[in-house]
Amino acid sequence: MSEPSTPLTLPKGFQTAALAAGIKPSGKTDLSTVISETDCVWAFAGTRSTTAAACVTRNRDLYAAGGPVRALVVNAGNANAATGKRGARDNADLADALGSVLNVDMNGVLTASTGIIGHPLPMDRVLSGVEHLPEDLTDDAAAFASAIMTTDLRPKTASAQLSAGLPGGARIVGVAKGSGMIHPDMATMFAFVFTDAAVDGPGLRAAFSAVVARTFNAVTVDGDTSTNDMAMVLANGQAGEVALHDFLPALETVMRDLARQIARDGEGATRLLTVRVSGALTEAEALTAARTCCVSPLLKSAVHGNDPNWGRVIMAVGRSGAAVNIEGMTVAVQGNPVFAGKPLPYDDAAVSQSMKAEEVVFEIDLGVGGASGEAWGCDLSAEYVSINADYTT
Amino acid sequence: MSEPSTPLTLPKGFQTAALAAGIKPSGKTDLSTVISETDCVWAFAGTRSTTAAACVTRNRDLYAAGGPVRALVVNAGNANAATGKRGARDNADLADALGSVLNVDMNGVLTASTGIIGHPLPMDRVLSGVEHLPEDLTDDAAAFASAIMTTDLRPKTASAQLSAGLPGGARIVGVAKGSGMIHPDMATMFAFVFTDAAVDGPGLRAAFSAVVARTFNAVTVDGDTSTNDMAMVLANGQAGEVALHDFLPALETVMRDLARQIARDGEGATRLLTVRVSGALTEAEALTAARTCCVSPLLKSAVHGNDPNWGRVIMAVGRSGAAVNIEGMTVAVQGNPVFAGKPLPYDDAAVSQSMKAEEVVFEIDLGVGGASGEAWGCDLSAEYVSINADYTT
Repeated sequence: MSEPSTPLTLPKGFQTAALAAGIKPSGKTDLSTVISETDCVWAFAGTRSTTAAACVTRNRDLYAAGGPVRALVVNAGNANAATGKRGARDNADLADALGSVLNVDMNGVLTASTGIIGHPLPMDRVLSGVEHLPEDLTDDAAAFASAIMTTDLRPKTASAQLSAGLPGGARIVGVAKGSGMIHPDMATMFAFVFTDAAVDGPGLRAAFSAVVARTFNAVTVDGDTSTNDMAMVLANGQAGEVALHDFLPALETVMRDLARQIARDGEGATRLLTVRVSGALTEAEALTAARTCCVSPLLKSAVHGNDPNWGRVIMAVGRSGAAVNIEGMTVAVQGNPVFAGKPLPYDDAAVSQSMKAEEVVFEIDLGVGGASGEAWGCDLSAEYVSINADYTT
Repeated sequence: MSEPSTPLTLPKGFQTAALAAGIKPSGKTDLSTVISETDCVWAFAGTRSTTAAACVTRNRDLYAAGGPVRALVVNAGNANAATGKRGARDNADLADALGSVLNVDMNGVLTASTGIIGHPLPMDRVLSGVEHLPEDLTDDAAAFASAIMTTDLRPKTASAQLSAGLPGGARIVGVAKGSGMIHPDMATMFAFVFTDAAVDGPGLRAAFSAVVARTFNAVTVDGDTSTNDMAMVLANGQAGEVALHDFLPALETVMRDLARQIARDGEGATRLLTVRVSGALTEAEALTAARTCCVSPLLKSAVHGNDPNWGRVIMAVGRSGAAVNIEGMTVAVQGNPVFAGKPLPYDDAAVSQSMKAEEVVFEIDLGVGGASGEAWGCDLSAEYVSINADYTT
């Protein structure tokens, strides 16, 4: 399942543990936790789905209440979504159980579930697993990244170093999962970020959604939004104060790195698709146009075939609804201008050759304003679908 | 290219012709027309794309001007989209040329182009083709349906009979094209409907967009919206008056039939996916929820695999943004209830067996209101993508 990963230490005061509780029939690791020695200020963003799972709903309620948190518990193999009132109770019981073991208020325990929709959690096995979860704690973030993988091919981590009041400074360590592909009920994306920086809680909360919009929400793989998607940052302050204007750019760098890793890690995906949009009326419109390009099956298949078919960019931008002045619009593929209000002459073979790279970049100027945005996706290969389209019960 | 099709006569006063003008390198038929002996009242809907092609923009302007029309000219092989000012001139020249040959005002000639984006029309060949176009007129609607095919596997026609003042009554004949698939720049959908009924023009114009919303716009194949999509109805009145309350339901039946044919006719698609949503707050929300289900790669692949994986319905509805009360929500697959606020027990093998049908129907009640809507798509097979994802220049 997991390839060997580079060791990465969690920030000061954070520890993690994982075990196989028996939620997955395969017997693989399916229950994990990250625990902070001390209270964390935090920020949260959950799926926009109107059928959000119990874990998203409960975390959102706790976030609205505004209290600190101490721990996160993650299960794989079962999304506990569309499971009705029983699902909400089971989710609360999961948090309560870890709270009891840690001697922490259950309202300080966040939950995250990923896996199949519409099946109740096997609570006997889950609760028994939670009992044993804190027995073998480690500070290895890579172990946590591996433990939360479902169909991911690679564990996803990113980190940043910050200056802070205490010796050694503060750190940000992020961990994500996301299959980045069409896959049976497993497309949930998680991004968990931990830091020992002491940051202003209200300021972090106020800024977080914009950072998520430019990073986690700028990844698009198949247009399907999970019932369980979430991103969060937990800050325990153990390394001393860091001003938000220093912290937020580093947080965005870490989350952007994770987002790109999610986009790149699709089964069958052979390269990263990056779409940069400028000249938009607003950042939101720039992001919408960039995301619409990244989700377009036509553009994704063009990327797979090294086909500089910029007509598909025109189509996708048009479909996005973002304001555009086609006479002032420009498109470049891997740095080669191909459209500027009208088709430009270019060397098809040379541009196609330039697309045979790990990352294929489209740059689009909408010609109507000064805002910009960037989104990431992956190519669409026959392998990608042949693996997943023929999945049967 | 085309399979033998059942003869279908155009309504009174309409004739058609087609030829190979040399726009397609293959030498296949690529230029066609439908001409009415007398003026038509008409209604029109074009793509919502902000990068709409010249033909859509010009038809829209003529529609706003409100005059009658006499003819439609269609070219395949070249979309004349993203071709700048030259493209707009070429499109007007095409209409002007047919108008001259027919001795009709060019503002009475509508245009429709489909094919590759970003290449100028080869106007010498196009204009030479138009000269000869009306030489071999016929009343065979099936010939027109075949002439406008690009990657379609089957010509698409539908018709309805109406009572009217004159002997024989009035008729509605519809013709559509649409590849219903991921395909290189050829995914444009056209629906052209002709009738000899005399109908109230302003009333038809007022009603048309709602009919399009429930039919043509309820087809979704890969989420990509063409720069050239359009639907229109032309009524020349030669068969006598028909009241709108009789005409509109028949028009909707014809357009719905065409929409379902477009959804079914995807390369690699093996069955029709129908999603019926009820209990919505508004018809628009019902249609959005149904369409989101039909475009979901996860649900489409479940249909291909005969997998009654209703969790993907929950996911897709949640993603659509339509208001839903999950505790009052119900889902049925091929008539089998699988979810009613919580997972229901069902015979997985039996439900899977029931999905091995030409049409797979999901019925979803959102549990919040009284509005309903229906959308159509197709399954996602490995063949479907392997054909198209590996397309290269």
